[in-house]
Amino acid sequence: MKSSVILSLIALLFFPHLLLSSPLDPIEPSQVLPRPLILQFTSSLEEPDDSTLNQLRCDSWRFAAEANNLAPWRVVPAECGTYVKEYVTGQAYRFDLEMAARESLIYARTVEIKGDGMDAWIFDIDETLLSNLPYYASHGYGSEIFNSQEFDAWVEQAIAPAIESSLILYEEVRALGFKIIFLTGRSEGHMNVTIENLKRAGFLHWDKLILRGANDRGKTATSYKSGKRREIEEEGYRIHGNSGDQWSDLLGYPVSSRSFKLPNPMYFIP
Amino acid sequence: MKSSVILSLIALLFFPHLLLSSPLDPIEPSQVLPRPLILQFTSSLEEPDDSTLNQLRCDSWRFAAEANNLAPWRVVPAECGTYVKEYVTGQAYRFDLEMAARESLIYARTVEIKGDGMDAWIFDIDETLLSNLPYYASHGYGSEIFNSQEFDAWVEQAIAPAIESSLILYEEVRALGFKIIFLTGRSEGHMNVTIENLKRAGFLHWDKLILRGANDRGKTATSYKSGKRREIEEEGYRIHGNSGDQWSDLLGYPVSSRSFKLPNPMYFIP
Repeated sequence: MKSSVILSLIALLFFPHLLLSSPLDPIEPSQVLPRPLILQFTSSLEEPDDSTLNQLRCDSWRFAAEANNLAPWRVVPAECGTYVKEYVTGQAYRFDLEMAARESLIYARTVEIKGDGMDAWIFDIDETLLSNLPYYASHGYGSEIFNSQEFDAWVEQAIAPAIESSLILYEEVRALGFKIIFLTGRSEGHMNVTIENLKRAGFLHWDKLILRGANDRGKTATSYKSGKRREIEEEGYRIHGNSGDQWSDLLGYPVSSRSFKLPNPMYFIP
Repeated sequence: MKSSVILSLIALLFFPHLLLSSPLDPIEPSQVLPRPLILQFTSSLEEPDDSTLNQLRCDSWRFAAEANNLAPWRVVPAECGTYVKEYVTGQAYRFDLEMAARESLIYARTVEIKGDGMDAWIFDIDETLLSNLPYYASHGYGSEIFNSQEFDAWVEQAIAPAIESSLILYEEVRALGFKIIFLTGRSEGHMNVTIENLKRAGFLHWDKLILRGANDRGKTATSYKSGKRREIEEEGYRIHGNSGDQWSDLLGYPVSSRSFKLPNPMYFIP
């Protein structure tokens, strides 16, 4: 056996990948791993312009936010600031809010209301019943870091307007016979301004208004709100519907029979 | 007292609303309910054209589907057929898939992998790892009623291509040391064709492949899949991540530490 052949065999023993990586050796078809079968997009050859590309990226970011795929985030990505502003001040946000309300009502009408007054629907408040859009309009629509002092000053004015589709839903759900429970991340110190604001915006009657108390400090919204849902169920209520703009309004045990996620690309609460 | 005044007082006693409803009486400002404060959209005066309106409606429908707000649905609404086709064959679907994979990987890299081989990531198969888009392309992209016989014939060809971003994610997650569990709604009768298809699409290694067995018949996907997650946890696995295109892949007890919802506007599985 020639020494070059022996050396080649020794080399192959320790570095078998050389066999495949040498550009000189012919490779038998059976040695090549077949290229995996991968989905081809029919339009993948078109190169979108920068503006379209940014729109697509921000659409994807918004989808990921609304599907709860994102890691906790503090501000809207810089490149999506204008996108979010145009979305929330435009038709798209209103359409999305109306669709959420419409689907909620379709479901609410299918629920059998027992005569015992324990059929409940939970509503979050901010960005669910009341809109803080006037505040966010002067704070970059979510592209600035949240300033709790400035936001508190806004809350204390008690002038947040109603989201119209939610006001209509609230009235319809109440008329169907549901008990109305407002469950908010606002603190008990804001009880009076919250009541004042709710009434001013047309939310005149409710069965419970639950705010964060001293014992709820430091809890995530998911933990605080699911804990309150547990208490509500322990009182005997059946929670049929739950409306909120944050997944932390809706997730955690126990969950409502149906949950409705209202759109909100401006901020994230864990 | 004049008789007309007495009559008025009697009338008022029985019909107090007359006081407010008479168009002749002047009404004090304090008697008028204030108009509730309602959010005004800055662009609400612009009337969108029919094409923009349909786009907005279908965007809202897709958002509602992806946020799990819709009642169970069997077909894409007729007016959104073209919209869904353009979405899934275009850049937007690919971008959304890539964003879901990217966020999954960001999270996966933060997980501490213990040396005991019990850190798991669950993947659904259809529309998560493998794409049935070639099938749906010849079946109206979700606008036709699902035909299980025709779909089974497609599945048995074992030629569904990989979703590229999911293939990359799968490889990265495996390289990080996660145990890979495939949990699919496909039936055990399709085990061999599923294995053949997975390998052809580049998914070469996994730790478990769970298909619907005889005992799982008639269960919803939510019930079947959460039941399997319970069994997986009872075996000692820690389920850190769960990727699926249906909420029924992700919801129900126990839930994964993080869940990732891939886009799918073509069909709904309860």
